[in-house]
Amino acid sequence: MKAFKIPEATVMRLSIYSRYLHQLMDEGEDTVSSGEIANGVGVSSAQVRKDLAYFGEFGTRGVGYKVSELYLQLMKILGLDHRWNTIIVGAGKLGSALALYQGFSDRGFNICAILDINPAIIGNQLGNLEVQSLDQLSSLVGQHQIQIGVIAVPANHAQDVTEQLLQAGVKAILNFSPRVLKVTPDIVLRNVDLSVNLEILSFNLALNR
Amino acid sequence: MKAFKIPEATVMRLSIYSRYLHQLMDEGEDTVSSGEIANGVGVSSAQVRKDLAYFGEFGTRGVGYKVSELYLQLMKILGLDHRWNTIIVGAGKLGSALALYQGFSDRGFNICAILDINPAIIGNQLGNLEVQSLDQLSSLVGQHQIQIGVIAVPANHAQDVTEQLLQAGVKAILNFSPRVLKVTPDIVLRNVDLSVNLEILSFNLALNR
Repeated sequence: MKAFKIPEATVMRLSIYSRYLHQLMDEGEDTVSSGEIANGVGVSSAQVRKDLAYFGEFGTRGVGYKVSELYLQLMKILGLDHRWNTIIVGAGKLGSALALYQGFSDRGFNICAILDINPAIIGNQLGNLEVQSLDQLSSLVGQHQIQIGVIAVPANHAQDVTEQLLQAGVKAILNFSPRVLKVTPDIVLRNVDLSVNLEILSFNLALNR
Repeated sequence: MKAFKIPEATVMRLSIYSRYLHQLMDEGEDTVSSGEIANGVGVSSAQVRKDLAYFGEFGTRGVGYKVSELYLQLMKILGLDHRWNTIIVGAGKLGSALALYQGFSDRGFNICAILDINPAIIGNQLGNLEVQSLDQLSSLVGQHQIQIGVIAVPANHAQDVTEQLLQAGVKAILNFSPRVLKVTPDIVLRNVDLSVNLEILSFNLALNR
């Protein structure tokens, strides 16, 4: 673990910058200034420079950044210079949507398997994946050397599934359930509540009232 | 618009605190300290006090906060003391999962309608909602006085759908498509990229390598 702490908001912006740079590459752009990145993604150019400064010197004064070089460096920082094997637990609507979400694979996340406990769902085809039984969790994690587990089960099963994932060797958990999960400090945990995004809108709408 | 700017990370934490307070109310708790809130949601107690201080004085020294009062105050700050009418455009897997996501209604967001352009999907039932034609957008927004539009369409349709929503009178957009949307400054816009959550995991996993 590096000694300095990068704010999560910075990591999220690096992710956004990298997408924008990819778009510029598609458009055949060779170089880009911090001002152009700022403009393209809707932050200040000072913010762009500050975010990039966490990771050393990029770009040349007066010339800007080489698009493809900066893109590759950001992908490396984000840990996206190699692929991460991922398992989804829960094949309801949300789990199914996640399994079919093309964006994950585009960014280096292989969805290796999706599991459920409901016999009526097990065997269903979701794109290239077949929903498998939760009983297979441990063997699938070992077989595919899965590092990331995605929790898309009801709240009352979330802690139990998490413990099964960690016992099987998963190192990071993305939790879509509303349950606050307990994990040991060596595990990377992130909670996603889809409502939070709407609440940031309502907060801002309420300010404008 | 208030003169001071609240960091988005603070708004997200207020949302998390309010959920935790709701859980405490369910458990019959009467008062809570900042340390207990901090412990319950996994941040420092200094962070809890700093976040709440943006909005004036809460609680009593040595006694802590009245759970129900703090909950109601947070809900008001978050704009969740009344309900927001919401429309989802795009009834693919993601749009369908969002339409069925119970968490939205629990937090005050009424999903009034879900629309698609695909005749094979229009008419499908999603919980209490029937997928309607995109042609109905303008009349539905007017009829239900919809303030929030959720974009769950492919990238190449996202800007067009956004413009239709704004023309119909929607004031806030939650964008699940990967397209960077252009809106006027009076519109509240938030982009959600589900991959970003996985990338924050991969960033942290890469730090640990």
